Amino acid sequence: MSYEGFTRSLLSTIKNFNLFRDKSSFKGIGKLDLPCSVIWGTSDETVPFEGHKEMQKDVENLFIQNDKLLGPPNLVIYNPSARVRGGIAEVDPVETQKAINITCFGAFLCAQQAATRMLKRGSGSIFFTGASAGVKGYPKSSVFAMGKFGLRGLAQALARELHPQNIHIGHFVIDGGIHADHRPERKDPGDDSMLDPDAIAETYLQFHRQDRSSWAWEIELRPWVETF
Amino acid sequence: MSYEGFTRSLLSTIKNFNLFRDKSSFKGIGKLDLPCSVIWGTSDETVPFEGHKEMQKDVENLFIQNDKLLGPPNLVIYNPSARVRGGIAEVDPVETQKAINITCFGAFLCAQQAATRMLKRGSGSIFFTGASAGVKGYPKSSVFAMGKFGLRGLAQALARELHPQNIHIGHFVIDGGIHADHRPERKDPGDDSMLDPDAIAETYLQFHRQDRSSWAWEIELRPWVETF
Amino acid sequence: MSYEGFTRSLLSTIKNFNLFRDKSSFKGIGKLDLPCSVIWGTSDETVPFEGHKEMQKDVENLFIQNDKLLGPPNLVIYNPSARVRGGIAEVDPVETQKAINITCFGAFLCAQQAATRMLKRGSGSIFFTGASAGVKGYPKSSVFAMGKFGLRGLAQALARELHPQNIHIGHFVIDGGIHADHRPERKDPGDDSMLDPDAIAETYLQFHRQDRSSWAWEIELRPWVETF
Amino acid sequence: MSYEGFTRSLLSTIKNFNLFRDKSSFKGIGKLDLPCSVIWGTSDETVPFEGHKEMQKDVENLFIQNDKLLGPPNLVIYNPSARVRGGIAEVDPVETQKAINITCFGAFLCAQQAATRMLKRGSGSIFFTGASAGVKGYPKSSVFAMGKFGLRGLAQALARELHPQNIHIGHFVIDGGIHADHRPERKDPGDDSMLDPDAIAETYLQFHRQDRSSWAWEIELRPWVETF
Repeated sequence: MSYEGFTRSLLSTIKNFNLFRDKSSFKGIGKLDLPCSVIWGTSDETVPFEGHKEMQKDVENLFIQNDKLLGPPNLVIYNPSARVRGGIAEVDPVETQKAINITCFGAFLCAQQAATRMLKRGSGSIFFTGASAGVKGYPKSSVFAMGKFGLRGLAQALARELHPQNIHIGHFVIDGGIHADHRPERKDPGDDSMLDPDAIAETYLQFHRQDRSSWAWEIELRPWVETF
Repeated sequence: MSYEGFTRSLLSTIKNFNLFRDKSSFKGIGKLDLPCSVIWGTSDETVPFEGHKEMQKDVENLFIQNDKLLGPPNLVIYNPSARVRGGIAEVDPVETQKAINITCFGAFLCAQQAATRMLKRGSGSIFFTGASAGVKGYPKSSVFAMGKFGLRGLAQALARELHPQNIHIGHFVIDGGIHADHRPERKDPGDDSMLDPDAIAETYLQFHRQDRSSWAWEIELRPWVETF
Repeated sequence: MSYEGFTRSLLSTIKNFNLFRDKSSFKGIGKLDLPCSVIWGTSDETVPFEGHKEMQKDVENLFIQNDKLLGPPNLVIYNPSARVRGGIAEVDPVETQKAINITCFGAFLCAQQAATRMLKRGSGSIFFTGASAGVKGYPKSSVFAMGKFGLRGLAQALARELHPQNIHIGHFVIDGGIHADHRPERKDPGDDSMLDPDAIAETYLQFHRQDRSSWAWEIELRPWVETF
Repeated sequence: MSYEGFTRSLLSTIKNFNLFRDKSSFKGIGKLDLPCSVIWGTSDETVPFEGHKEMQKDVENLFIQNDKLLGPPNLVIYNPSARVRGGIAEVDPVETQKAINITCFGAFLCAQQAATRMLKRGSGSIFFTGASAGVKGYPKSSVFAMGKFGLRGLAQALARELHPQNIHIGHFVIDGGIHADHRPERKDPGDDSMLDPDAIAETYLQFHRQDRSSWAWEIELRPWVETF
């Protein structure tokens, strides 16, 4: 498997349970040059994807392409986000709009494509990777706050809309750094003070497998020593 | 005074207290054809404004124009919002992005222009008109949820960033219909079951006049009989 | 006027608006030795009150006594609270139960007496002084968290129950120190970094006077420089 | 196994994973006549328990008794709650205080005994069964709101205090009816519209087994068709 970090963890965890068949990671949605994880099927072939000019078109194409290869998805996970750090007077408006598009509007586009297919079949899960910035607006972080609060609003509205139609929505508030062996600054510190991507992936899988008599729509995950 | 509804109420209330000098209502920011209230000065002359092609340019121009006429604003209120009703599978992505821009990104643009000027002077208030959709995601309302949750994230982040710099942020969660005599379907029912725009405006003014030893950043307003 | 600090501020502010007639401060409810402010009428005579053995009896007697002197109250404010600091393994269970009684159960008792009278007349306001500990559970503060979260639950439930019966509920989240000239460690620092009791009292009065078309049930107040 | 309903589910689920050794269910804490589940060890022997006059004494004795039989607990779950339905003017104050004691103060007492033992050993989990009444105050339910909001405050404060000491806190917001085959009015409707106690128990177990790099402190569980 050629994936790394959290994406790799999601795939490994899912494979262990023999539930899924494929995953597609693609860059360059609307030339934004950020990876987006969309997971379905039960193997881990890569669905090659080339970016298009417009984000909306790209997402549509991704789903159409995968329809042919793999059929309608069981589980779609939207991970991408972008932040622009700085005080309100300093941040660039163009970068700000791009960040909102990646963090929030792209999630809407993927959710729309996923929901259309899942409603037809009558089942599925759509999960969103959130952040503590989605429940608390931090200073010098107003751009990320817009994106992540907006994402959470999308998830909560969809939970109320789609749960009664047998489509499970999940919003995961990740509060802390995720360790990633392929990034030197993110090495596992060995004391569980950074989130283990396998542990997060296990929680995603638990949500996907939850009995529909007892669905959750949100969970906050943070290291035991994290201040909150 | 030629204004109507909530805008008229804001202006009237403010004039009664002799605190402000002007207000500009403009249409067509980025050709979105929605009014945006920006209030400053102490009279109610209208600042004529013609929309430009790009939202960002329009907002910048509005503030530059008013700098010449009135000087830096004491209070800026961002009211505009747009909703696209419907299930996730039905709503139009282009309309959706436009709605996020009006409800959330436009607020960021105005806040940025306002904050730049207020930071220079060392004081001011920036208020955002929110909705119950910003604290609760309703079914068939995921688009409005993204916009209003995002707006609330912006406001909360700015409160943490700008309060210690003597700039007061307010987020007003309006939960219920506002009566408006110029709209037949919004006539005052006479039993206080719809929000009186004058009453809302009074709360905005109270926030603006709050002693900085006891600032609030948010309040929810709803009719006494409203279910929540 | 013989009152001091926040109680004095509440009375002064209210007198300026000529809305009320009296106020009773009493100690020793159930021998808890903590003052409780109950405000009604339009002057500031003191209603003398001697504590009884049981909290419930004491509160009943207080209201019965004031019925004779002043009639049914327009506004009842419940201020008392008690905290027991320390880690969960250290705090004394007897002190803990006492603290829950003062912070939360006493508020229920006063609210019950107030509501019974206000429902008969068809109007009134019942306000509760909360704290940041009621919306965020801090470490080594689990006892205060139980009391203040419980108080907030009471207030929110009563807002949903009593607003449609024309009784206005208010919950005020005070986040920061209130300066008090009669306490050396609480002297006004002169930079608005502690809450001015007059400013808090003004917000209470604004709530009491809110048009019922636009009622709030909660507001957070903190100094401009307070971290949150 | 002689247990029924949710308690049986907790025990069955836990036994399947061979993690625990015992469980004690006891009635009559402080003569309140409500069962309290405290789970530890790895079998399901019953620890016989006779109630004492005072709640505090009872809880202490329960833990002391189990110390001898089973040693310090790995996992303690506090389930009991009591509600008093009715408008604020109708509910009985004595029943109200009893309900707060059962729902909230008893949880504190058990948490204190559990934490004392777990801090000594350096590990453990303390879980609280909450309700939607702990995050939303419903009309005619002010008594339950006080108890369940208070319980949530306790849990959140303990999460901040004890997580960094390697003790995991969990607060489970159960929103909906739990089906129970031994209660005629709670028969499984067969359409997953009531919470399956086995599914809830599985989530409790997942929390207990969470990697400490990715701990959650709260989750909301409700049937797919439940309105929220």
